[in-house]
Amino acid sequence: MKIGIDAMGGDHAPLEAVKGAFIASSTMPLIELVLFGSLLKITEICESESIDLGLFTIVDTTDVIEMSDHPVKALLSKPNSSISQGFSYLAQGKIDAFLSAGNTGAMLVGSIQFLKLVDGLDRPCLTSVIPRLQGNPGLLLDVGANADCKPEHLEKFSLLGNLLYTMMYKVDTPKIGLLNIGEESEKGNLLSKATHQLLTQTQGIHFIGNIEGRDLFSDKADVVVCDGFSGNLIIKVCEGLYYNLVKRDIQDEYLDKFNFKHYGGSLVLGVNAPVIVGHGITKDKTFVKMIELACETVETQLMRKIQKAMTRFIASQSDVLNPSNEN
Amino acid sequence: MKIGIDAMGGDHAPLEAVKGAFIASSTMPLIELVLFGSLLKITEICESESIDLGLFTIVDTTDVIEMSDHPVKALLSKPNSSISQGFSYLAQGKIDAFLSAGNTGAMLVGSIQFLKLVDGLDRPCLTSVIPRLQGNPGLLLDVGANADCKPEHLEKFSLLGNLLYTMMYKVDTPKIGLLNIGEESEKGNLLSKATHQLLTQTQGIHFIGNIEGRDLFSDKADVVVCDGFSGNLIIKVCEGLYYNLVKRDIQDEYLDKFNFKHYGGSLVLGVNAPVIVGHGITKDKTFVKMIELACETVETQLMRKIQKAMTRFIASQSDVLNPSNEN
Repeated sequence: MKIGIDAMGGDHAPLEAVKGAFIASSTMPLIELVLFGSLLKITEICESESIDLGLFTIVDTTDVIEMSDHPVKALLSKPNSSISQGFSYLAQGKIDAFLSAGNTGAMLVGSIQFLKLVDGLDRPCLTSVIPRLQGNPGLLLDVGANADCKPEHLEKFSLLGNLLYTMMYKVDTPKIGLLNIGEESEKGNLLSKATHQLLTQTQGIHFIGNIEGRDLFSDKADVVVCDGFSGNLIIKVCEGLYYNLVKRDIQDEYLDKFNFKHYGGSLVLGVNAPVIVGHGITKDKTFVKMIELACETVETQLMRKIQKAMTRFIASQSDVLNPSNEN
Repeated sequence: MKIGIDAMGGDHAPLEAVKGAFIASSTMPLIELVLFGSLLKITEICESESIDLGLFTIVDTTDVIEMSDHPVKALLSKPNSSISQGFSYLAQGKIDAFLSAGNTGAMLVGSIQFLKLVDGLDRPCLTSVIPRLQGNPGLLLDVGANADCKPEHLEKFSLLGNLLYTMMYKVDTPKIGLLNIGEESEKGNLLSKATHQLLTQTQGIHFIGNIEGRDLFSDKADVVVCDGFSGNLIIKVCEGLYYNLVKRDIQDEYLDKFNFKHYGGSLVLGVNAPVIVGHGITKDKTFVKMIELACETVETQLMRKIQKAMTRFIASQSDVLNPSNEN
């Protein structure tokens, strides 16, 4: 298995990416780690950190897509950037997964441009883990890839979340909830009311109804779907509250679960190959977690499962539209 | 000054409302407290709690709008309920403000039906206090009265929040922010992008730009506007996280500020008289805070200020449409 790593992505690039890859090379010796970035800079870091350069395959790139770059323009104008090259390798099957802590927009746009969306999907989405007091964390999606959504998008996110949760936590039938501002089906905004109705009829998921903000951290639902605007607001509210409580010197095992560094970034769900985006401030150990998540995604063939689920979904939709197909 | 209290509203009615009114009667002896509710039940509580019934004016009502009642139907079918009677008194000027910990929907609908919206407004809104590490809290609005909003609604919320913040914290020019998922003006969903553009041109407020979820608890903005869906999600996410951390036995002064009991409910902003709605689980001391907030709203003539601000706003809008008016 070959995992591609954008060595130039993130606020601490390429140092933390290289350090993370080095740690992963010892704990996961069978994985080939392919670093995309400046050979010169990676060599310098390996020398100063006493890391054997031979542990990695290096794809020397001359350009970097900066955090502030416009995603579409940057991908067009910087074909020899670490991100563009990473995607190019992934699209050609030269690596099995690609991860970066760089420009999230460029990673999303690149995912769609190079890998294409799975048939039946017209949006990718991002997920976030939601810490709960007991048991597995919950999963929230979309958390920022789609600021404006239609009910059909949220329905497809529920299928994606269902498969991802099953992979991550070995739970056969996760409980799927809809983020809303009331428990009753008639509560909410236009989007959530229409989505509620749709999800009650969606095949292949165990929809348990609306989930209010206060129940997000409970075990009422395992996977909670929402538009990317709401999801992004929520994860950033949690982040803000977490940092304020850390400033108050509160030390608590549960609170600590809100520290993003424990999670290996977010899979770009909905494209045809495994892509993982991390927080800009990602450090070495979190890079290791991103690499682990990439490996798990490849091993469990999550993308294949998503493709199959979407094929089934399209067939079920066409059955609904043309009932005679059922015969 | 006469403050009307729905004695039958809330999960602990009428006990906690009566106890709260009793405490307020000693700390605010000049205020006439008018209780709307069952005379029999209020008398029983006064006897069992050794409270002098003569401290209050009682308006005996025979009906109760339950938490589960449909707001519009209940107001129509229960004209002699404590909520209907309270609004009727307020509309007739027999009391100066009305407060309840009962059915929020009925309180919102009643506010509009009995008191009418301030000229220039077509939606009321609800606000919530946002605890910050230092200084005054922030203010978030709308937090649930309007699940679907247009940019024009959020613009008017910014005017309302501006005046309320000035009243509550004696800050002349509060910083107004727009809740969004990015700091840059071009970030966000269709609503937030259009609202951003509108707020940069809104007269009478100090608009400082987008506020991400993580900055909600900082002093970047004093007042943050959003649609009621997002606002309600956020306050309930804070509530959920607060309760989980309390379950972890964390005791902290800042965390404790997320306990709603410290705040006296939420003003229904945008109608022509002061109305305050409280959480269903409100207890006596929080009723006192609701009464204090009602008194402050009456004393500072907040509603008059809102009416004047809206008149100015309408005039400024007509100047924009007909520049010749400026002469």
